[in-house]
Amino acid sequence: MPAPATPHLAIDLERMQANIARVAEAATARGVALRPHAKTHKTIEIGRMQVAAGAHGLTVATVGEAEAFVAGGLDDLFVAYPIWVDADKAARLSTLAARGAAISIGIDSIAGVERLVHAGLAGRIAVRVEVDAGHHRSGCAPHDAGEVAAAAVRAGVEVEGVFAFPGHAYAPDARERAAREEADALTAAAAAMRAAGVPPTVISGGSTPSLAASLALDSPVTELRPGVSVFGDAQQWELGSADPAHIALTCHATVVSHAGGRLVLDAGSKVLGPDRAPWATGHGRLLDHPDARIVQLSEHHAVVELPGDLPALGSVVRVVPNHVCIAVNMVDDLEVYDRGDDTMPATRWRVAARGRNS
Amino acid sequence: MPAPATPHLAIDLERMQANIARVAEAATARGVALRPHAKTHKTIEIGRMQVAAGAHGLTVATVGEAEAFVAGGLDDLFVAYPIWVDADKAARLSTLAARGAAISIGIDSIAGVERLVHAGLAGRIAVRVEVDAGHHRSGCAPHDAGEVAAAAVRAGVEVEGVFAFPGHAYAPDARERAAREEADALTAAAAAMRAAGVPPTVISGGSTPSLAASLALDSPVTELRPGVSVFGDAQQWELGSADPAHIALTCHATVVSHAGGRLVLDAGSKVLGPDRAPWATGHGRLLDHPDARIVQLSEHHAVVELPGDLPALGSVVRVVPNHVCIAVNMVDDLEVYDRGDDTMPATRWRVAARGRNS
Repeated sequence: MPAPATPHLAIDLERMQANIARVAEAATARGVALRPHAKTHKTIEIGRMQVAAGAHGLTVATVGEAEAFVAGGLDDLFVAYPIWVDADKAARLSTLAARGAAISIGIDSIAGVERLVHAGLAGRIAVRVEVDAGHHRSGCAPHDAGEVAAAAVRAGVEVEGVFAFPGHAYAPDARERAAREEADALTAAAAAMRAAGVPPTVISGGSTPSLAASLALDSPVTELRPGVSVFGDAQQWELGSADPAHIALTCHATVVSHAGGRLVLDAGSKVLGPDRAPWATGHGRLLDHPDARIVQLSEHHAVVELPGDLPALGSVVRVVPNHVCIAVNMVDDLEVYDRGDDTMPATRWRVAARGRNS
Repeated sequence: MPAPATPHLAIDLERMQANIARVAEAATARGVALRPHAKTHKTIEIGRMQVAAGAHGLTVATVGEAEAFVAGGLDDLFVAYPIWVDADKAARLSTLAARGAAISIGIDSIAGVERLVHAGLAGRIAVRVEVDAGHHRSGCAPHDAGEVAAAAVRAGVEVEGVFAFPGHAYAPDARERAAREEADALTAAAAAMRAAGVPPTVISGGSTPSLAASLALDSPVTELRPGVSVFGDAQQWELGSADPAHIALTCHATVVSHAGGRLVLDAGSKVLGPDRAPWATGHGRLLDHPDARIVQLSEHHAVVELPGDLPALGSVVRVVPNHVCIAVNMVDDLEVYDRGDDTMPATRWRVAARGRNS
C-alpha cells in the first residue's frame, strides 16, 4: 500500500510492545494485578496484547467502550465511572451481562446504587466504590465508602472493592504526593468497608504519572490501571514519567510552510488534540527535535520554533501529542510501523471504540 | 426513536437557521459574498442550507473535507490552506477537478506553486495567495503576494485572488484591531498583486469574532468566511461575538454525581473538546446556568461549580463547548431538535467530514 497521507497517527510497534512488557513486569514484581485503561488506545489488537502480557482484564470509561471491547472478545471489564443507570444504560448493561461478560462499574453514592437495583441489575453487574483521593472529581469521601458498600450489599449488589484515580498526579512534582494520598485514601476506605462488613477484594488505583511511585510505596493496592503508559505522550515526557526513547505513538506531519521563518506543519488540534496543561512547554513535542517548541496550534496548523536549519518544505516530522488519549479518539485508524521502519506501515488498526462517549 | 443517550451534541434547528439568515443578510447589506467555513459543522445538510441562504460556495480546510462535500453535491469549494501537493494530494485534487468541481486552494510560497505545477494541476485547480494579517501562522508577507501570484501566472496557474485569516481576533478586546489589520494587509497585498500584473478578483477574509467589525469597516474584502457563526460557542459568548440566546449547539449531559457538593456531568473533553484559551472562564458554559463555571474537565467528567441548589442527580443539562469546531469533530452524528423541543430530536445528521484531516 502507498504511504498514508499526513497527518496520521503512527504506532512504533516494537516500542509499544516493550512498554506493555515493562509495565507488566513491574506489576508482577510488586505482586499487583494490572487492569490497563483501554480508553487510551480504544483498539482491540492492543487490548489483546495487554491481556496476553498478563493483564487481568481491561478498564474502560463508558458503556460504549465496554460494548466495543466485548465485541472484540475482551469481556473482563471494569467501567471506572460512576454510571447513572438510566433506561438506555440499563438496557445496554443488561445485554452485556446476558452475553456472559464480567462487567463491574463504579458507584459513588447510595442514589447510584438504587438506580442499578431499580434497573434489575443487582446480581448481574458488580460494583466498586469510587473514593476521592485528592483529585476532587467524582468519588465519595473515603470514610463514606463503607456506607455506600453496605447499601449495595443490602440491595443484593455484589461489591468487588474500591477504587480511586489520582488525577492530581498530572502536575510537576506531584506524582509522589498523589500516589501517597491515593494509598492513604484507599487504606481509609478499605477500613471503612471492613467496619461496615464489606471487606474489599479489589483495591484499585493508579495512573501513568503516579505508576512508579505507587509501585514503590507501601500501599494497599491490589490492582493498578495505567492507561497512557502503553504509548507515552508529551505530558508524560515533560512530567518525567515517560522516557522519550519509549514514546510509541507520534503524528506524522508534513512541513507545509516556512512562513515567518518558522515551521508550519499540517497537524493541528483536530489530530493532536487541543490539550495544553498550564505547565506544558507547548502544544506537543517533536520526537526528533527535542529543542523545538510548538508555539501555536490551530485546527490544521502547528507552528514550530526550533533552533538551527528548518526541515525542508515537504519533509515529514514526528509530533508527540500532549495527551495521547485525545489524539487517538480523533482518528478512525492507527498506522502500525514495525522493525524501526518509519516510512511504510506494516498494518493498520481500527480505533474500535473511538467516539464511544456514552 | 428513544431519546439519545447522553452525552450527545444537539442542534437547535430554529436558532441555527436564524444564525445562517442573520449572517447572510448582513453580508448582503454590505455587498460582500459569503463563503462560510464548513470545518465548523462538517455536515452536508448544513452546507446546503448555507448555500440556499445565498453563500457563494463553502470554505474547507483539507482535501478530505473537499471530497466529503463534493460527494454531498457541494462542489464550489475553497480549501483555505497552503496545501503541500505531494503524490497523494495531487491524485485526489486531480480526481476532484475531473469530477467538475470548482476547487481553489491556498498558496503562500513559490515552492508551493511549483508543487502544483509539477503535479499537472495548472489550469485545473485555481489558487488564492495567503497573506499573514497579524495572526503569524501561515501566509506570506502582504508585499510578497505579488511575487507569488506572478510566479503562479507564469506557470499557467489561475490566481483567483488573495486571502487572510485574522485568528488573532480570538482574544479579549482584539476583534476590531484584528479586523483593521486584516483590512490593511489585504489592501497591501492587493496593491502588490496589481503592481505585479495579477489584480485579485477575490479579496477574502474573515472569522466569526472579527465578523461584525469587518462588516463595519472600510475594507477591500469582497468575501467573508466565518465558520463558528452558524452555531456560536462559549468562546464567542465570552468574547462578545455570540449572544447566548443565539447559541445553536449544545452538549446534552447527565448529572452523574454530586461529589464534593459540586455537579459532575458525563460530558468531558472527548465530546466537548479540551480547548481552553487562557482568557476563558472555564472549560465551557452551561446554557441555562450562566453563573455556573466548569472548573475541571477530564475525558468523561465535567466538574461544575454553581450557586444555589444543584440540579438533581440524573437530570440533563445543556453544555456549550468552548470551541464548537472541535466538539463537532469528535462525534459521528448531530441530533437535531426542532420547534423548541429539547427532549426528543426531530432527526439526526451525519458529520460527513469528521476526522478528514488530510
